[in-house]
Amino acid sequence: MFNAEKFIEETIAKIKKDVTSKTLIAFSGGVDSTVCAALINRAIGKQLVTVHVNTGYMRKNESENVKKLMEKMRLNYHFIDASKEFYSALKGVEDPEKKRKIIGEKFIRIFEKVARDEKIEYLVQGTIAPDWIESGDTLRDTIKSHHNVGGLPKDMKLKLVEPLRDLYKDEVRKVARALKLPVSEKQPFPGPGLAVRIIGEATPERTEIVREACDIVEKEIESAVEKGLMEMPWQYFAVLLPVKSVGIHGDRRVYGNVIAVRAVQSIDAMTCAFSKIPDEVMDRISTRITNTLKEKINRVVYDVTNKPPSTVEWE
Amino acid sequence: MFNAEKFIEETIAKIKKDVTSKTLIAFSGGVDSTVCAALINRAIGKQLVTVHVNTGYMRKNESENVKKLMEKMRLNYHFIDASKEFYSALKGVEDPEKKRKIIGEKFIRIFEKVARDEKIEYLVQGTIAPDWIESGDTLRDTIKSHHNVGGLPKDMKLKLVEPLRDLYKDEVRKVARALKLPVSEKQPFPGPGLAVRIIGEATPERTEIVREACDIVEKEIESAVEKGLMEMPWQYFAVLLPVKSVGIHGDRRVYGNVIAVRAVQSIDAMTCAFSKIPDEVMDRISTRITNTLKEKINRVVYDVTNKPPSTVEWE
Repeated sequence: MFNAEKFIEETIAKIKKDVTSKTLIAFSGGVDSTVCAALINRAIGKQLVTVHVNTGYMRKNESENVKKLMEKMRLNYHFIDASKEFYSALKGVEDPEKKRKIIGEKFIRIFEKVARDEKIEYLVQGTIAPDWIESGDTLRDTIKSHHNVGGLPKDMKLKLVEPLRDLYKDEVRKVARALKLPVSEKQPFPGPGLAVRIIGEATPERTEIVREACDIVEKEIESAVEKGLMEMPWQYFAVLLPVKSVGIHGDRRVYGNVIAVRAVQSIDAMTCAFSKIPDEVMDRISTRITNTLKEKINRVVYDVTNKPPSTVEWE
Repeated sequence: MFNAEKFIEETIAKIKKDVTSKTLIAFSGGVDSTVCAALINRAIGKQLVTVHVNTGYMRKNESENVKKLMEKMRLNYHFIDASKEFYSALKGVEDPEKKRKIIGEKFIRIFEKVARDEKIEYLVQGTIAPDWIESGDTLRDTIKSHHNVGGLPKDMKLKLVEPLRDLYKDEVRKVARALKLPVSEKQPFPGPGLAVRIIGEATPERTEIVREACDIVEKEIESAVEKGLMEMPWQYFAVLLPVKSVGIHGDRRVYGNVIAVRAVQSIDAMTCAFSKIPDEVMDRISTRITNTLKEKINRVVYDVTNKPPSTVEWE
């Protein structure tokens, strides 16, 4: 049986011993990076340099909340708003693989600069067990690598610190609860953020649409779970489809775009079943999205595919 | 209370009196055109020239079944396979309005030729009451005109015969039942056929995909209705989306297209609610589509929008 208290104590002691100088952590505010930062902060304090990048592809109010969290955790942090840079780097780019690559490279350049300026020696990675364990085939690594930021280039010669390397996701959540971190129940969010939830070009306008739709999906599903109407999904979000479909405004036929809702149940993210959302909840989500995003979105669909054959994210 | 037997008797008598020479009917095999053809055939026999056009955008086995029906009804018919012509006319055309216009014009040219060759004087239209009744706004006409073939040009100077002009859809179905027509419960199908269920270019390859998916949706929903698992929808079908989304084949990430399933409940098609399909039925539909169309389709979504704000068909 996994003992979170013991893990915390031993990990802090080990980091105190092993990590002897300035250390960089990329901080998304998700469960893994927040647990890493909390543990290492307890071990080495201000020697830990925490960097949060607002890529412009974060969820509604997310970067503001991450900032508050870093303050509350008394981290030594850099808050970098690079949204304009990311938007212009993705201008005109429709290919999903290219989008991911450009975002990964932008991240690297930002972290490289901080590492140089701050004379960093160690780099924290939030790697967890399912990211590296042999799984009989190569599926696990192939899929997972696409959901994280590309990784730092080898010539940076930073020493890796991976405090969660032996943990599974549910164990990381246990540690987060033991540390009383407010992010312990947060759903996973991909490194490239909303950019992979916008099929086609991820313009600022289209990002605003999917950001609003994601917010509605999260709020409605969380409220339904609270009311006991459904199980908490592993992940739940919205995707913007560049499909023109006809709708009715007043007495006119008007073409608008489509929002897809995705929600899945899973134990380990390796296989997933689409979440069974009650009809009245689905109806509310659909109506709120088309009302809020009138003239832009006139159709909402629900992804009813399991993994496999499809993945959780669309890109 | 509507009396189908009386309506049949009076209509046949009226047609015998009014329609004195060769008459053309465009025969899709749907409820309206089949009822019209049956009534007029009883009144004027071989003077009725029935024309069925296989546009290539018909459902699986549909034109073959229409041919059998025309034979069974002992109609004087032309069966015209124009699929190659329609496919090449739509090559490279992505705009939904242009697609509809091209299909409407092709239909007209085919009917014009038959009308000239056969020296036709009358033209049957399956107009029903909701198509022309004043509705307070112009919505009804605007929407409806897009679901029918464009209509014949005015300079053809054909006299119109509209035997169903005063009937509502449920009354047309009553007449079909009284006439023992096997199409009495058939769901409506748009004039441009599967072409408006393929978002983007309606190539032969993409038509095969949506034809197969439509067939799976129809069979699974009909079987679920038969088992008492759900109500019979007003319409139910599949739409092919030109969206690239990632899926898993073996250990590889592979991009495929998306199939949207649409099913609605309605009294009069003016307003609709998305059909509540049980989870296990949805799961079967999704799995059958991704299994059957492997390598092409790896994701299935269900349209959860009511009308308004969206229409029943996507284009």
